[in-house]
Amino acid sequence: MADEAILMDEGDAVYNSDFAKEMIRQMRAVDTYGTYDNWTPEKILEPFILTKEMKREIPIIGDPDELIISRIKVFYNAIAAMIEKECGLMASPVINITYEGFGRVIIIVGKLVVLDRNLRDVHRFGFQDLSKMKGDADKILSIALDIIDNHSAAAGM
Amino acid sequence: MADEAILMDEGDAVYNSDFAKEMIRQMRAVDTYGTYDNWTPEKILEPFILTKEMKREIPIIGDPDELIISRIKVFYNAIAAMIEKECGLMASPVINITYEGFGRVIIIVGKLVVLDRNLRDVHRFGFQDLSKMKGDADKILSIALDIIDNHSAAAGM
Repeated sequence: MADEAILMDEGDAVYNSDFAKEMIRQMRAVDTYGTYDNWTPEKILEPFILTKEMKREIPIIGDPDELIISRIKVFYNAIAAMIEKECGLMASPVINITYEGFGRVIIIVGKLVVLDRNLRDVHRFGFQDLSKMKGDADKILSIALDIIDNHSAAAGM
Repeated sequence: MADEAILMDEGDAVYNSDFAKEMIRQMRAVDTYGTYDNWTPEKILEPFILTKEMKREIPIIGDPDELIISRIKVFYNAIAAMIEKECGLMASPVINITYEGFGRVIIIVGKLVVLDRNLRDVHRFGFQDLSKMKGDADKILSIALDIIDNHSAAAGM
């Protein structure tokens, strides 16, 4: 637990953001056996943090395991949920990851692709800190909302 | 070979269509060892035909093998190539098939989803005859071109 305390600042304002709450909701949704029931938000989000030092210890080439893939899904599902919340239209994520660790994430709103991102080095998925994670999500969200604004008919508005 | 002769009419006009030519081109593209080099178009397209009688002999529940998945990719890649040819914009297929035989095919043009289809019973993929196959492809193509027409800005025109 000492390690975790270093990685995560419990007072972090990020925990109170809608995005972090959605991430925790998504993590609990895939937690079939209720393992996370008594976990704090900090502990639930901790696996998303991968500092430069931690990254350096992971081999450059590696196969992603089920756990990492489920985390990637949680991250992009949470973004899709945020998009949905902001624009009121259903956002549907399509996540394709090969066993070699390459992949592609697409988020669709109506007939519109609001995110199309190639993934690589999936086995080293993680963010340097929680604000970096939220920053990436916010960037995707704002681009997606711009695309919907610009092509509202295709989005189904 | 007697069986094949029954299934495929060698004089079939479908063989001269752009779509059939594209299908054959795509089949040859995945033919790493040059097995099809001396095959006739009829023989190359024969695995796409699954009559009602043949379908009846395949169990309702089954896992799709690599070969069937590669055929499904060939079919939708060929459709994407046709869309590209007609509208002059890149069409990119995303094909997701689970090992249980469910899946989803998406074709993207620019920021536009021009095909979004759920697949099921993938292990029984096939068409009753070549015209049925071309008919399905033509239908997808015409809907895709309509969507592009209606949302040309999102398609990138």
